Amino acid sequence: MTDYLEFYRGRPVMITGGLGFIGSNLARRLVELQAKVLIVDGLIPGYGGNLFNVRDVEPALRVNVADIRQQSTMNYLVQGHHVIFNLAGQVSHIESMQDPRTDLDINCRAQLFLLEACRHNNPGAKVVYAGTRQIYGRPSGLPVSEAHLVRPTDVNGVNKAAGEYYHLVYNDVFHLRATSLRLTNVFGPRQLVRHSRQGFIGWFIRLAIEDREILVYGDGTQVRDLVYVDDAVDAFLRAGASDACNGMALNVGGAEPIAHRDLVELLLSVAGTGSYRFVDWPSDKKAIDIGSFYADSSLIAATLGWRPRTSLREGLLRTVGYYREHLPHYVDAEAGGTASP
Amino acid sequence: MTDYLEFYRGRPVMITGGLGFIGSNLARRLVELQAKVLIVDGLIPGYGGNLFNVRDVEPALRVNVADIRQQSTMNYLVQGHHVIFNLAGQVSHIESMQDPRTDLDINCRAQLFLLEACRHNNPGAKVVYAGTRQIYGRPSGLPVSEAHLVRPTDVNGVNKAAGEYYHLVYNDVFHLRATSLRLTNVFGPRQLVRHSRQGFIGWFIRLAIEDREILVYGDGTQVRDLVYVDDAVDAFLRAGASDACNGMALNVGGAEPIAHRDLVELLLSVAGTGSYRFVDWPSDKKAIDIGSFYADSSLIAATLGWRPRTSLREGLLRTVGYYREHLPHYVDAEAGGTASP
Repeated sequence: MTDYLEFYRGRPVMITGGLGFIGSNLARRLVELQAKVLIVDGLIPGYGGNLFNVRDVEPALRVNVADIRQQSTMNYLVQGHHVIFNLAGQVSHIESMQDPRTDLDINCRAQLFLLEACRHNNPGAKVVYAGTRQIYGRPSGLPVSEAHLVRPTDVNGVNKAAGEYYHLVYNDVFHLRATSLRLTNVFGPRQLVRHSRQGFIGWFIRLAIEDREILVYGDGTQVRDLVYVDDAVDAFLRAGASDACNGMALNVGGAEPIAHRDLVELLLSVAGTGSYRFVDWPSDKKAIDIGSFYADSSLIAATLGWRPRTSLREGLLRTVGYYREHLPHYVDAEAGGTASP
Repeated sequence: MTDYLEFYRGRPVMITGGLGFIGSNLARRLVELQAKVLIVDGLIPGYGGNLFNVRDVEPALRVNVADIRQQSTMNYLVQGHHVIFNLAGQVSHIESMQDPRTDLDINCRAQLFLLEACRHNNPGAKVVYAGTRQIYGRPSGLPVSEAHLVRPTDVNGVNKAAGEYYHLVYNDVFHLRATSLRLTNVFGPRQLVRHSRQGFIGWFIRLAIEDREILVYGDGTQVRDLVYVDDAVDAFLRAGASDACNGMALNVGGAEPIAHRDLVELLLSVAGTGSYRFVDWPSDKKAIDIGSFYADSSLIAATLGWRPRTSLREGLLRTVGYYREHLPHYVDAEAGGTASP
C-alpha cells in the first residue's frame, strides 16, 4: 500500500520546525516523494533547528526562517498548502519549568494562532501535529493506549496537551482536518546532540561515539520504547494523506520496549566505544520523571496501517554511522545549540 | 464535622473573580466565618463581576480591582494569603470560539503566571481552582467520574483543562498545594443573568421571572446535574482547609440529574410565571454541545465529606426569590454586562 506516498507527488506541503530533527527527516523524505516542500523554522538558539539537516537537498525545497509566535507571518505562510506538518515546539521539559512563559507561548499560544490562521486563510488544509506521550504522565499501567488519562507532570506536558486539544477542537468544530501523533522517544540522524536538555537518547549516542562515559540515572531499569525517525516520518506521511484519522490522537510507539541500561549496553556494543555507570537521580529531573513507559500503538496500526519497521539495533547502527560522519555539524556553534552541559 | 469552617476564622484568604457568581457567594460565606477576605476582580464588561454582589458586606472585606493577566500586580497581591480561591476566568464557550486569544490569555496564560507568582512569593499557599466538567467533552458513559478521559469540545474547555493541569503540576513539582474542583452547572443568587452567553440556567431563571418564553433546544431530553451555589461554596471551603485533596481534581456534581425540559417545567412551577417551547439547535451551539452529562461525585465525598445538600426545588425557590427582589442590579448597565441578546 503505497498510495499515501504517491499522494505527495507535486503537492504543496509545509513543515513547521522543518529544520529540526523529525521535521528535517520528514522534509527530506517529502523531497524524495517530489512534494513541494516549504520549511518554516525559527532557528531559535538551543532548539533543534539546524540548516545542515537539509543543506544537501536545499535546491529541492524552500526554507523560510520565521517564528511560529509571529501571528501575521503565519497567517501568510499557511496559505495554499494541502498538508501542514506542525512540528515546531519547545521540547525541553526542564526548560519548561525554568521558563514556563516561553513554553506556553510556543507550545500553546502559537499553536492556537496557527490553527486560527488555517481556519481563516486555509480551511481546507490537513494539519498533522507532533504530539507526545509525555502528556500521559506517570502511566497507571503498561502498555499505554490512547484510553489512558492525560495527566502531564510538567509545564511542557500541559502545553503540549493543550496544543493537541486545540487541533482536535478545530477539527471537530471548524472542520479543519487535524490529527495528533503522540510520539514516544524518537531517535536517529539529525537529532540535536549539542546538549542533554532535549531527551537522553541523542546525548547518549554522542557520548558513545566520543568514547565518553554515559551516566545512567538510578538503577537503569526504567523502560522506554524508542521509534527510529524514519518510522516516525512514515507515521506523519500516512496521517497527512488520510482522512481516516481526522480528529484522532494516535500513539506512535516502538516495537521493542527496553530498559535504559539494556539500551545503553546495546548502544555501546553497536558503537564499539563509550562506557557507562549508574548515578543517583538529579532532583530536578526526578521531580518530573514518569517511571517506565511504553505505548500501545495498535490504534494507528488499525487506522493507518502504520507499524515500526526498523529494529532498535539497525536504527542505532544507522544513527551512530551518521554522527560518526557528521558530528561537527551538530556540536559546533552553527548547530544552533547553546553551551554544552 | 465543622473543623473546616473553624479553619477560616481570622485567616487571610484571597478570591480571584471574587465579584463574580460563585466567588461572591464564597466571599460572603467567608465573611460569616470571620476570614480576612481579599477579593481580586477585573470587572471586565460582560463577565460575571458585579459590585452589588458584595455591597452589603463590603465593610467586612476588601475589594481590589485588578486583572489577573497583569502579572506584576498578581505577584504582589498573592502574598500573605493562606488560601487562594482561584475563580477568575472567561466562562463563555461561544466567546472562546469567537475570540480564542482572550480566552487563552485569561484561562491559560494568567493561570500559569498566578502559580508562578505563588511559587516565588507565597509558596506555602493552598490554591483551590475552579475547574469545570466541560473538559470531559462528550461523555463516553454516565455518570462521569474523574477516570473519564479529558476531551474538550471547544477552546474554553482546552484552556480550562490546561489551567487545571498547571495547578496539579505546581502541586506535584513545586510543592505548592493545589486542588481543582470540576464544577458542573452551578446556579443560584448572584449569577450573571444579563445575557445567555454564560450558561443556560441563569438566563432561564430570568426569563421565567420576567414571564417570558424560554426556548429549549432540540427535544429537551438532554440531562444535566445542577449544583446550588451554597453547595459549591461548601466544596471550596472544604478543599481550601484540607490537605487530603492536594494534587487532586475532584468532580462537584448535583444529586438530581434532570432533563432540560423537566428542569424548565420545575422552574416554571416554582416561579409561577414564564412559558417555554422547543426550537431547533442553533448551529454554533450545536457544534460545541456535549449531549447529556452528569457527574459521579463519590471521590470528593470520600476525600472531603462533601455532598450536595440543597434540593433542586429548594435551590430554585431561593434563586427565584433573590432575583425577584434584586433583578435590576443584574440587568442594568452597572451589572457589568454588555447588551442583552
